[in-house]
Amino acid sequence: MADSYDILAISGSLRAGSFNTHLLRAVASRAPEALRLDIITPRGVPLYDGDVEERDGIPPIVEELKERVRAADALVIATPEYNFSVPGVLKNMIDWLSRGEHQPFNGKHVGIMGASTGPIGTARSQYHLRMTLQSLYAVVMPRPEIFVTKARDKFASDGTLTDEATEKIIATWLKHFEPWARLGQQHGRV
Amino acid sequence: MADSYDILAISGSLRAGSFNTHLLRAVASRAPEALRLDIITPRGVPLYDGDVEERDGIPPIVEELKERVRAADALVIATPEYNFSVPGVLKNMIDWLSRGEHQPFNGKHVGIMGASTGPIGTARSQYHLRMTLQSLYAVVMPRPEIFVTKARDKFASDGTLTDEATEKIIATWLKHFEPWARLGQQHGRV
Amino acid sequence: MADSYDILAISGSLRAGSFNTHLLRAVASRAPEALRLDIITPRGVPLYDGDVEERDGIPPIVEELKERVRAADALVIATPEYNFSVPGVLKNMIDWLSRGEHQPFNGKHVGIMGASTGPIGTARSQYHLRMTLQSLYAVVMPRPEIFVTKARDKFASDGTLTDEATEKIIATWLKHFEPWARLGQQHGRV
Amino acid sequence: MADSYDILAISGSLRAGSFNTHLLRAVASRAPEALRLDIITPRGVPLYDGDVEERDGIPPIVEELKERVRAADALVIATPEYNFSVPGVLKNMIDWLSRGEHQPFNGKHVGIMGASTGPIGTARSQYHLRMTLQSLYAVVMPRPEIFVTKARDKFASDGTLTDEATEKIIATWLKHFEPWARLGQQHGRV
Repeated sequence: MADSYDILAISGSLRAGSFNTHLLRAVASRAPEALRLDIITPRGVPLYDGDVEERDGIPPIVEELKERVRAADALVIATPEYNFSVPGVLKNMIDWLSRGEHQPFNGKHVGIMGASTGPIGTARSQYHLRMTLQSLYAVVMPRPEIFVTKARDKFASDGTLTDEATEKIIATWLKHFEPWARLGQQHGRV
Repeated sequence: MADSYDILAISGSLRAGSFNTHLLRAVASRAPEALRLDIITPRGVPLYDGDVEERDGIPPIVEELKERVRAADALVIATPEYNFSVPGVLKNMIDWLSRGEHQPFNGKHVGIMGASTGPIGTARSQYHLRMTLQSLYAVVMPRPEIFVTKARDKFASDGTLTDEATEKIIATWLKHFEPWARLGQQHGRV
Repeated sequence: MADSYDILAISGSLRAGSFNTHLLRAVASRAPEALRLDIITPRGVPLYDGDVEERDGIPPIVEELKERVRAADALVIATPEYNFSVPGVLKNMIDWLSRGEHQPFNGKHVGIMGASTGPIGTARSQYHLRMTLQSLYAVVMPRPEIFVTKARDKFASDGTLTDEATEKIIATWLKHFEPWARLGQQHGRV
Repeated sequence: MADSYDILAISGSLRAGSFNTHLLRAVASRAPEALRLDIITPRGVPLYDGDVEERDGIPPIVEELKERVRAADALVIATPEYNFSVPGVLKNMIDWLSRGEHQPFNGKHVGIMGASTGPIGTARSQYHLRMTLQSLYAVVMPRPEIFVTKARDKFASDGTLTDEATEKIIATWLKHFEPWARLGQQHGRV
């Protein structure tokens, strides 16, 4: 059993001040030593076009991201909710990652969460994302769930989490996610 | 009551030989005279980035598409299914269309369909798309549904529909969609 | 155009003190004169069993409920959320109503809502219910949605609504639902 | 590591000639020696009523079923699809099983499948069922999925599976499910 786990954390927004990126930073800074989170965004991933794939193959940035997903011991994805579903920008990144050989999500253990400025906290988006991850043979931690509502009230202008209730939710979530990441190493191809 | 209806038909794929574009052409060529379908794709719509929107506003291509959606008497959307959900490319287009003033989908009557090479025919994608359209106050025709499965066997290499069963399904669908488009004109803002 | 509309309102719970029944009463008492709500529950509807249906036909209570759904100008359904979906008790009632000739939901205009003691207010359940109603050719009002969260804090012990924010949400909802019910009369069979 | 696994298999229909029960029997008879399937149905589970629960507690039949779920090494659920979702009868059984102490689905590894006489093979129902199982902290095998379409053509009148393609799908599914059941024993409380 490994002593530590490399977790790739994907924030589903391109905004520099994204609440979902803030949320992942809050999780990373509170994670136990054994969990090392590396945060990325869909920045630089082009729009998926089957004709381009056929002509030019998979873009280097996508190959590189696929390799990072494959190399990770587990994943965390923080998704915004746009129009009751996963942002096109995040879905497009996953669509590219699912192309070609060596499906990187296969058997991977994943935790998901999300933050929004509204009252639902990305619940709708997260259930759609779960279906997409299921299609890729990923195994998503069932619960606890993290729905950060009214995010404007919970993060300082520099992105620091300031809400105590959310701190507690993150602490509980981490207690479940650490064994989940550990189990993920034992899965291999499901 | 209008004598004819201008229908904006959105194909959710960038591929030139997209089965969903083929499907919309098959529908357009079989539609009664009163329904005029104009087919577009997400070609040219950039990836949504909130920082870009804040700095530069809504891109001209998006403003133009918003105007076309608004001007249409009704919409048809043909969606592929990528990883059990709406393609990022199509979702990203809708995400942009939902930005700014004058929500173009509001109260709009919509019909949806989809084609895939697999056995489910985009059912999963269509239910996610329905949720997104609901969020935008669109009113989606409940049934009949069109799930074109094993699309490779149903279209000729030039994109012509060659499957008789699908022809019948389209004919039935059009019988329902014509009054649905007509009702849409009476809705206004729901 | 009718001067008034008979609305059948279904509460998806058997509990006498159900928050969803309370919610429907709150809506009924605030509805404009033109909307007359009649509230029912799944009480008395047996568990669906295909063998029983084959042997004995559709139970009299189901036939009677089908007739009431058919006779209504529009429907309202208030659903609890059990285990992230529609309560079995409510789904079972709909399953029975969908059996036999003369599908009563066909083309019917419907509004849905829900109340729960948790933070999500039955959102998950409502999206599943929307899919079931779509399958029955019903046309569900897209928005506004009503998710009554933390219901214990919002109703008095006698079931009276005491929360001002919820009152406003109901008022807005009724402004949209009245024209929705009116349009429903023009739909007929979709 | 155990040498064999006791699998509780739930068929979501009350019909004696249910295709979902037939499907589970086909799976049971083809399972490797290490997997012993015991098939049950919702027969005898009353409609959930919160007032009855408060007054009388959890019915003995539900307590007994909870104990069987808890004792199982893993679960299989075969669900019909009624009106685009989980049958009320099956959902009602799960609703009862989720009541009281000692949540029996917690951390349990589950495989799901379904058979229908239509062309979709219960896909819609299975995705709703996955959400309900997620809510109960169960861990559902992501893939492969089993959607038995046009079931009337695939089972003999005595319920025996006669379709070769479905046989192969079951064989593949069992190859994935055996390690899934084994992993389930290592999960404990997630």
